[in-house]
Formats: sequence, structure tokens, C-alpha cells
Amino acid sequence: MNKIKVGIVGGSGWTGAELLRLLLQHSQVELSIITSRSLVGQAITQLFPNLIGQTDLLFSNFDVENLSQCDIVFFATPHGVAMETSPKLLKKGVKVIDLGADFRLQDIEVWQQFYQMTHSQTHWVKKAVYGLPELNREAIKTAQLVANPGCYPTAVSLALAPLLSSHHIKYDDIIADCKSGVSGAGRGANQATSLCETSENLKAYGVGGHRHLPEINQVLSTMANSEVSINFIPHLIPMIRGMLTTVYVNLSQNLSKEQLFNLFQQHYQSEPFVQVLPLGQVPETRSVTGSNQCHIGIWVLANQKAVIITSIDNMLKGASSQAVQNMNLMFGLEERTGLRQLAMLP
Amino acid sequence: MNKIKVGIVGGSGWTGAELLRLLLQHSQVELSIITSRSLVGQAITQLFPNLIGQTDLLFSNFDVENLSQCDIVFFATPHGVAMETSPKLLKKGVKVIDLGADFRLQDIEVWQQFYQMTHSQTHWVKKAVYGLPELNREAIKTAQLVANPGCYPTAVSLALAPLLSSHHIKYDDIIADCKSGVSGAGRGANQATSLCETSENLKAYGVGGHRHLPEINQVLSTMANSEVSINFIPHLIPMIRGMLTTVYVNLSQNLSKEQLFNLFQQHYQSEPFVQVLPLGQVPETRSVTGSNQCHIGIWVLANQKAVIITSIDNMLKGASSQAVQNMNLMFGLEERTGLRQLAMLP
Amino acid sequence: MNKIKVGIVGGSGWTGAELLRLLLQHSQVELSIITSRSLVGQAITQLFPNLIGQTDLLFSNFDVENLSQCDIVFFATPHGVAMETSPKLLKKGVKVIDLGADFRLQDIEVWQQFYQMTHSQTHWVKKAVYGLPELNREAIKTAQLVANPGCYPTAVSLALAPLLSSHHIKYDDIIADCKSGVSGAGRGANQATSLCETSENLKAYGVGGHRHLPEINQVLSTMANSEVSINFIPHLIPMIRGMLTTVYVNLSQNLSKEQLFNLFQQHYQSEPFVQVLPLGQVPETRSVTGSNQCHIGIWVLANQKAVIITSIDNMLKGASSQAVQNMNLMFGLEERTGLRQLAMLP
Amino acid sequence: MNKIKVGIVGGSGWTGAELLRLLLQHSQVELSIITSRSLVGQAITQLFPNLIGQTDLLFSNFDVENLSQCDIVFFATPHGVAMETSPKLLKKGVKVIDLGADFRLQDIEVWQQFYQMTHSQTHWVKKAVYGLPELNREAIKTAQLVANPGCYPTAVSLALAPLLSSHHIKYDDIIADCKSGVSGAGRGANQATSLCETSENLKAYGVGGHRHLPEINQVLSTMANSEVSINFIPHLIPMIRGMLTTVYVNLSQNLSKEQLFNLFQQHYQSEPFVQVLPLGQVPETRSVTGSNQCHIGIWVLANQKAVIITSIDNMLKGASSQAVQNMNLMFGLEERTGLRQLAMLP
Repeated sequence: MNKIKVGIVGGSGWTGAELLRLLLQHSQVELSIITSRSLVGQAITQLFPNLIGQTDLLFSNFDVENLSQCDIVFFATPHGVAMETSPKLLKKGVKVIDLGADFRLQDIEVWQQFYQMTHSQTHWVKKAVYGLPELNREAIKTAQLVANPGCYPTAVSLALAPLLSSHHIKYDDIIADCKSGVSGAGRGANQATSLCETSENLKAYGVGGHRHLPEINQVLSTMANSEVSINFIPHLIPMIRGMLTTVYVNLSQNLSKEQLFNLFQQHYQSEPFVQVLPLGQVPETRSVTGSNQCHIGIWVLANQKAVIITSIDNMLKGASSQAVQNMNLMFGLEERTGLRQLAMLP
Repeated sequence: MNKIKVGIVGGSGWTGAELLRLLLQHSQVELSIITSRSLVGQAITQLFPNLIGQTDLLFSNFDVENLSQCDIVFFATPHGVAMETSPKLLKKGVKVIDLGADFRLQDIEVWQQFYQMTHSQTHWVKKAVYGLPELNREAIKTAQLVANPGCYPTAVSLALAPLLSSHHIKYDDIIADCKSGVSGAGRGANQATSLCETSENLKAYGVGGHRHLPEINQVLSTMANSEVSINFIPHLIPMIRGMLTTVYVNLSQNLSKEQLFNLFQQHYQSEPFVQVLPLGQVPETRSVTGSNQCHIGIWVLANQKAVIITSIDNMLKGASSQAVQNMNLMFGLEERTGLRQLAMLP
Repeated sequence: MNKIKVGIVGGSGWTGAELLRLLLQHSQVELSIITSRSLVGQAITQLFPNLIGQTDLLFSNFDVENLSQCDIVFFATPHGVAMETSPKLLKKGVKVIDLGADFRLQDIEVWQQFYQMTHSQTHWVKKAVYGLPELNREAIKTAQLVANPGCYPTAVSLALAPLLSSHHIKYDDIIADCKSGVSGAGRGANQATSLCETSENLKAYGVGGHRHLPEINQVLSTMANSEVSINFIPHLIPMIRGMLTTVYVNLSQNLSKEQLFNLFQQHYQSEPFVQVLPLGQVPETRSVTGSNQCHIGIWVLANQKAVIITSIDNMLKGASSQAVQNMNLMFGLEERTGLRQLAMLP
Repeated sequence: MNKIKVGIVGGSGWTGAELLRLLLQHSQVELSIITSRSLVGQAITQLFPNLIGQTDLLFSNFDVENLSQCDIVFFATPHGVAMETSPKLLKKGVKVIDLGADFRLQDIEVWQQFYQMTHSQTHWVKKAVYGLPELNREAIKTAQLVANPGCYPTAVSLALAPLLSSHHIKYDDIIADCKSGVSGAGRGANQATSLCETSENLKAYGVGGHRHLPEINQVLSTMANSEVSINFIPHLIPMIRGMLTTVYVNLSQNLSKEQLFNLFQQHYQSEPFVQVLPLGQVPETRSVTGSNQCHIGIWVLANQKAVIITSIDNMLKGASSQAVQNMNLMFGLEERTGLRQLAMLP
């Protein structure tokens, strides 16, 4: 089989950097083009010295002609960019995975409210497949446009999928207390993400309403086939990577921890990237950092509550490696191709 | 007034180190004795070089005769030590503040279950005053024995006090998702608290039942004058100090955020060490690190839920400076004496 | 005595934040004015929540009339600002301490080369006193304008002062391998100082020639009363605060470590903020973080080399608390007033 | 070709953990045995959850019969263990790579002095090949016993190799100011490596004489074919991984930076794991973290000095992946097999 010809639009941010690393080592990929308006002509190894010795690629301009030679183009761009530019490629038959939020929300009004711009491509939103393989694997295989999920929605929906599809919990009283490393805020210069502001410090943010909330509610409602509305508070953790999600649910009937464990075990038994940990074992973020894995731990608490904890790498299963997983599905590859990296300890 | 003659038993751990720093700079204190079995004869500046130039004190043995010359003795010892040894001083009229858990729980059976030893001094438990000044200020003033609260109980009860005393929330559905820096685990050699295990990592711990849970339930029940039982999950954050507590409650009636804010503002208006932040301002741990302050933020979420976030320094308001605050009360000093340090930024 | 009326120009950066904290707690100071062009009218507690409950001050505009009511004004501004604006206050008799580099270098050409602007106030440079109390105490007492030293020059010159004044080392073969926390780079939004770029990472910077190099050479040459030219390489350490300086020198004669220790001990015996550690004890940055102290350790190596290691808090002895030390001297106060804070462990 | 049958002795420390991760993903390796006295019968995934889903191996006892079925056995054990036990396998023809120091020093007396024990296997020391492929590639290919280098010796000797073999520097005045992450201290419970002692802190250690000093001098002397004796001071950096080495040398003649660059470039042009960075580009530790790469930067300073900075991952090129590189050579495999992982940014 010919290698997949791949382009990346917006390769100078963290999700772009990780796409680069993953795709340069992917056995079935030929990385052809990487664009960055501000870095045209610069070697990518100058920006990302971890790639020295791996590639001679230079950053180039966004050019529809060139990009349309690709089999697939990843958009690792700020919100609004993929909406404006990806349709030019889509119309030429190029497949597209958008790592941003432009095609994630089916409710256009909500999107416009949360992202503070007008959506110009509502018909492409309808065609877009939400790229959570554990929910939409079959649809992804035939999709031309995949909306790659946000990190929080990935973490929260993997925590709740087995419970929602089995109707074992109350839908109006779910709390997701989420904790993310600082890389989730992106690579741009930002006083708020400096080491001096974020190290040896801890705080909640977006308490009044984070942009990922409507996306979470949408995917959970799809899973439950019923309206689900959760309370979601993200916290900024003094670390680079990692996302831990502590989800509190009210069980609709008495279930033992063993019953819950079996429910999760069955739900995820054939998933290559979801591991239900033995009862009592606590998920840690470092055990999945650098990998596409999600670890899940389960506890039953007092007052007929349960707590589900998931751990993912926000940059990988929460962004770039999940995008590669989607690409593998879209091209009929074994789903784990290029995604077998393991977390390092320590 | 003569200076207060102070002894510290168990001065080689973190809470001892912080007591040392605070008491060496306290204008009304003469620090006379500091004991440590393993370090007898060693200069405290050798162990704690931050004190170089401040003191010539040496660590000494635990000696009842010497310690009974003190007006007050702090126990910064592992559980069980203060229980066995402090009564020898109490009988001689010395005041005692125990920073450990030996006199915190009124229910002896629960204490014995959680701390896995027999309690030999149950009559002293009855006489002990729980040293949370915001709850027990008057009783502390006349106490001979103060049980200094744990860090989590301090943080959680300051978050809930205004709501419990006003009966505005449901008592059987409270969640405290707590986050603590690593110093809470103490100073002993411990693989689990090495930088390589805890930095760039995040996990929950004690999910099945942390030792602070019964203490939390006891103090909350006292505040509510009714049985309160919460769900409490602590998380280990990759930082040295700081404790952020995110408490989720169900309001028993519709309350606006302004109403909640006023409730908290009134409850804490005369407290020197509790600051209710303006609506919308997020508590950060670093804003209180190094101080005896507690910052509180308030939000109303969907589904008639509210979230209260508190921030304290787990080593200070959660341990050593709260102990000094209690000492100030016990000796009729202005409550802020020696406790005016501010957090540093950055 | 009346309190000293103090103004701060440029109060929104890290050195300004630390001046605020120190001066708000200084018993002899009335903090009257703090300016910040971008934050006029905003409460300083909104920017720096660690000060909540301490002050109601608002940021104001730079106003010569108002500022000239002050006894002393601190400039915590980017390079060039104090040069342009402080003479307006100096002419009215106000004392000035500049925490920037505008008045540090006596060689104007070198200054202009390193700071890439024309110097418009060369006569004030001549009048300025270099504010290193351990070198210039008497001159500082009567100065109207003090050029507060840079962090690296402070650390390096305290390491070398006893050796240079005693002519025990070769002047043309000194290496200063310096390590600084990230706060030294300032508070502005900067991709290079984000947690994601600096945490779990380590690198040298300014290898070709850091701006502090001519300042270091100037102060060392003054100390030696002879031309000194060193090799100086700074490194960026993944921590907020702290500066460790490892200085390698060639002894001009065989000296034992005890002889070196005595030399240092005698040189610094009456200095309130310099501690020569016992032989064998290693300086750590955390032992001085939050204080105005400098710790010094001394070793003799093979090949007639010695190594001197100094530890300071780059934000304090390297900037803001050294400025307060200078103010104390300029107003005839006990030098330690308001500067007795100790480092916290852990 | 049949897969190489591999055993690991002492698999519960950090170097063991990294060997596990690398060998489990090595296409030509069958990992058969991993021993740990204290963990016999436990799943390695319980200790190292990053490996969940990769292996069902259990820790087993050290058993000569079983281990001698292996083609090669790695010793990731405390000093002294490989000395005592590896000869039992060597005598049966098994190849051995010792990641400890037991066979590194040819001068037995020096070894005994630095490691404080009697060496019982001096004849095996003579047969051992020092496993630095850039120095000893051909000898490693035919070795039965490889002494895998220490992390500091690897970093320092890669910095100096081109200069020593070309005789361009003075041999009696070399300074290596080294900086290492905390993982270098190992995985055992140790107060000194707790997050509370090492985070937000920085210090030198082993100033009087680190164990790696004689090893460094030995390998440098081999390279120079002449006695070399350096000054070496290691520093403990508040990060998990990474080693930066700043080496100061005196050039024996005037050389431009371009000449030095060409010298290094030619020396390392065919090395797969050493990258000489373009002039002016600064090595960072994170660019090699997780990889077997060494990055080198070169500068010429004043006073005819040069500085060479190298960056390696202390756990990988400084330990476990260098051991795998040696194994590849010993079995005639392409040297990069299983070692193509790249560092991740951020």
C-alpha cells in the first residue's frame, strides 16, 4: 500500500508539535506539508529540536493547491481557522481532521455563543463525525471530516459511557471535577501560563462555564440517548501534561463495586486504548503520559454514590494521538499503528 | 508581660520546622526546648539552615522535668506519642497543643479503628478543645489541651460553616474534592513522596476512606447541630504546599450567588484569617502560601448546586500557624501576633 | 520619627510585587503611591491577592507632582524608563532607588551597546551609587540616587569579594556558572518562560554575552582595584525563585580550606545578611528563599582551584529586599528593619 | 533470526523500569525473566502501570538455572550485586551488561576506596569492556561483559572526546559543572529526594568527590592517551530527568568557534545518537528526554576558553537505552533498533 500523504495546517503549537512527532514515526505516513504563517521557510527542527535528525521539512504557507495533493490534512489551528479554510480542501476530496472546536457542536447557536463568532459552514458541521472512536468507530471509518474531541470531553465521556448506556445513574446530578496540566492552554505567549504563575500553585478556572461544557453535554446526551447536563469544574495543575477526571455520580440502584467493575470491564474489553484498572488501583496521570491510553478506576462511596476516575494525556488521547487514531480508522489501518508508545517512569 | 515559655516535642518534621520558624519570630515567645529523639545534641540550624543566624538551640531529649518548666508545649509528633506523653505535662499544669490526631475525635471507637491503636487517655479526649478558632474561639481561650485540627478538616469546615449554621444545604449530599501539596505526607523517607513519583503526576489517594473523614464529619455535624456525612476524595498535587478544596453542595432552596456571598461575608466579617473573595475571583493556593489565611470563593451552578472553593496553606492554617493562633488565644494575646506574614508572589 | 513616604513606579511586575509586600509590612514606611500605566484605578489586591486585607491602594498614573511628595521613590520599571523619568524627581530632592540597569554601568558606551539605546542622563550615572551594601555601605547612606544591583552581579560579587580584596586569586581565569529560577525573566507574557517550556527542562542562555557581564566585571574590578574579566554562563532552572552561583577560581598560592574559610568568615563577620556556612555544608536556594540572606559555601579542589558557591533569592537579595536594605541605609534606619523574614521549609 | 532471550536482574528500580519499557517494545527481543527479591510473584504491571496491557510477566527470584537460559542478562542492581552474581552466568557463556559500577574502574584500589567494599572479581574487571559505543564500538561487538557507563561520565566524555583526541586543550584545567535531575539518585525511599526537599530548590552535592570522578578521569585519559584530571561538581536540579553538562576548557591554541564546530561535526558525523547543534543553538534537556540522543553545543569565550554543553537523558543515554545500544552491538543488530523514540514537546 502507498503511504498516506499527510499535511498539517498550523504546525507551530503544541498539538502540531505532537502530530509532527507521531506522524514522522508512523510507518504508513509520508508527512509532506506543514504550514505556519509566521514561520515560513524555517526548519521545523529549529522550532522543535527533539526532531533533529528526523526530518528536513520546512514550514510553508497555507496553499490550497499543495495541500490538496494530500490524502488527509490535520488542522491544529485556533478556533475559526479550520471553519474558514478546510472546506476548500474538503471540496477537492481531501479528508480532514480538525483538532479544534469548529465542527464539534451540532447546535450552531451554542457554538456561536461559546466561541464568539458566526459559523459560516453549518452544512459541514452536519457532515462532520465526532471523532471519539470508542463511541463512533464505524462512522469515523467512512467520514471525510472528523471533529477531533476536546480533552475534557474525551476524559469525561470515557468515564461515563458504560454508565450512560446502561442507564444506571441519574442524569441530572453528575459532577466532573477535572484537573489538567498547563499544556492544555496552548503554546502562545500568555502571562497566565508562565511557570511563575502556575508552578507551586493550584486553582480552578472557567468555573462559570468552560467552552468544553456544551461539548460534554452533547456527547453524554448522545451516549444516554437522553438529555444529560453535568456540573463541570476544571482545575489548573502545576504540571505540563496529564488530565485526571474525578466524576461523581448517583447510582439509580444499589450496585457493588464488583458489579460496576464488571460493567466497565465488559464495555471496554475490546478497546485497545482503554484500561479498566483492578479494583483499588488508582489511576495516575504519569502512567499514560506519552501514550494514547486511558486508565479508569472505579469506587463506590457512601450515600449510593460512585466515583469514576479517568487518566489521559491531554495532549495525546486528549488531542494529537486521538487524531492519529482517527486517521488510522479512516484509512483502514490497524487502529494502533504508530500509537504503541508507552508512558515512561519516572 | 513575661514572654511565654514554649517547648516543642518532635521538632524534626515539617510541622515542627514551621513551628520553629514562627515561634522564633513571635514577639511574645521564648522558645526554650525542642526535642527530637534521633537528633539529640544537634544544632537545629544544621537540620534547618533557613534558621542560621536566628538561634543556637540544640535538639534535646524528651524530659518531663524540663518540659514542665514551659508554659505551653506543642506536640508535633506521630499519632500516639502525644496520647502517651502529654498527660505527664498536663498533670503539672502545662498547657498543650497537639498537632496530631490523638485528641481530635470524640468517638473513641472510630479513632481506634482509623488509627489502629488503643486509646489510653479517653478522659483527656473529653477535656480537649477542638482548635478551630472560627468555631470554638471562646472555648479555646480557657482550654488546657487543644487538639489542633487536620488540614482537610480545616479547609472543608471553613467552606461549609456558613451554610451549615444557616441550614441552607442538604446534609446527605456534600462532595469535597480536595487537592493537597505533597508536604501533607510528612518529612519521613518515603518512596511515595519522592520527586520522581509525585512531580509531573497527579492522582487521588485514600479514596476508600481517608483518616480525616471522621474528623470532617464530626466538625461538620457540630456546626450543623445534626448528622452530616460527606463524600471526600483527596488528591495529591505536584507541589510542595497548598490545599485547594472544591466543595459541591445542593442548595435546599434557590439562592443567588449574591445571597450566598452575603451569607459568607456576614459569617466571616470579623475573622482576621478568613477572606471571602469578590464574586468571580478564583482562590489560588499561592495567594495564601506562607500565611495563616483562608481564601474562599463562591459560585452557583446549574441544578441548584453551589460550589465553594477554599484555599489554605496546609502547613500553616492547616497545621502550625493555626496552632500558634490557638496559643495566642490561650494566652490572651491579640490573635494575629506573630502571624502577619503574607504570601509571596511569585 | 515620621514614617518614610514611599512611592513605587512600575508596580505590576515581580520586583514591584515584592516591594509592595515588603514595604506594606515595614514599620517605618507609609506606602503612598504605586503607579502602573496599564492598571490605573485597579486595586492592587486584584492583581496581587496575597495582599488582600492589607491595603486599599489603587494603581495610579505616573504623576511628577504626586510622586515628588514622597521621600523616596523606587523604580521597578523596564530599562530606559527610570533614565527618562527619575531625574524629574531627583531635581526636586526626592531620593531614588532604581531596580533596573539604567544607572549601574559607569561606562556609558558599554551600557549603550548592551541595552541598545542612547543614554540621556550620563551626569546622573556619575552621581549614582551602586547599591551593594557589602561594598558601598557608607556611600549608600548619603546617596540620593542608588543603582540597585542585578541579581547575578550580587551573587557573584559576594562570592568573590573576600578573595579579590585579598588578592588571593588570578584575575584572568574566573568562571561563574550561574543558575537562576525563572522569575528573573520578569512577569510579562513570554512564550519562553511558560511552564511548558521551562518545567522539566534545563538550559544555558545568554552564553554569548549576558547583559549582567559588564556589570559583574565592573564591580569585581572595583573590589580588586584592578581589571577583572570573568567567564559567566547563566542557566535557567525549572523553579520559580532562587539563584545558585558556582564560582571557580585559581588560587595564586596554596591555601587550605580552613584558611579560605577564615578569610571569608572575617570578611563577612559583621554583615547581617551574609552567612558563611560551616565547611562541608552545601548552600541550597530554598534556605534563603523569601529572605534577604546570602549563604556561602567554600571548597578547595584539585589543581589549586577553589570553588565558592553562593545562594540568594534572586527576587529579594537579588532585587527588592536589597533595595529596601539600601533604603534603610539612606534613612539611617537599622539595616534589618522590615527584612527579618526567614525562608520557609519545605 | 531468533529473538534474543533477555533477563533483567533487579527490575524494580528506575533503570530496571526503563529497561523493561524499552525491551518490551524491542522487535528483536523476547523478555523472559525479571527478578526482584522483594517483589517475587507480583505482576510488573502492578509496580509499573505504564506497562498495563503490554505484558503478563511476574517478578521472580534470582535463579542461576533460569537466567542461564537467557542470551543476555542486564544487571540493574546496587553496587556489589553484579560483582557477586554475574560471574555465575558469565561462566555459562551468558552475555552480561552491568548498569552499575562494578566493572567500570580498571584501578581496583580506587574502586574499593570509592565504593567501600572489596572487589572479588578483578579478573572480570579486566575482561569487561567499557560500554561507551562512541569510544569502544568495535570492542563492544565482541564483548561478553559490558560495563555500562555512568550518566556523568557519558555526558562529560561525549563533550570532550573530539578535543581530547585532537589534543587541542590543556589536560590539567578542565571544569565540568554538571546538572542532573533527581531520578539519578534512584528509586529507594530517601528523605533527600522527596519532592519537598528537591522541588523549588537547587544545590551542589558531592563537591568533595563524587563516585563518578575516577570513572570520568579514566575514560578521559583513555581518550587523550594521557593523564587527564578534571574538576567536576554535580548539582541537583528540581526536575525528574535530564542531565546538562557545562564543560569549560582552555584551548591550547586560538581556535574560532567555526573551527571547533567543524572538529565536532567531523568527529560525530556518523554517530547515530550524537547531534552537534548549529552554532548558537542551545542544548536543552527536554529535547532529548525519552530518547537515546546526546545534543552538543559549542561556544568560544574570552581568555581563550571554550565551553561545551551536552544534554542527555540521564535515565536513557545515561543508563538504560545506552545499555540497549550496547546489546544491539553485541548481537550484530542495527544500532538503532528499538531506540528510535523521540523526545516529546512540551
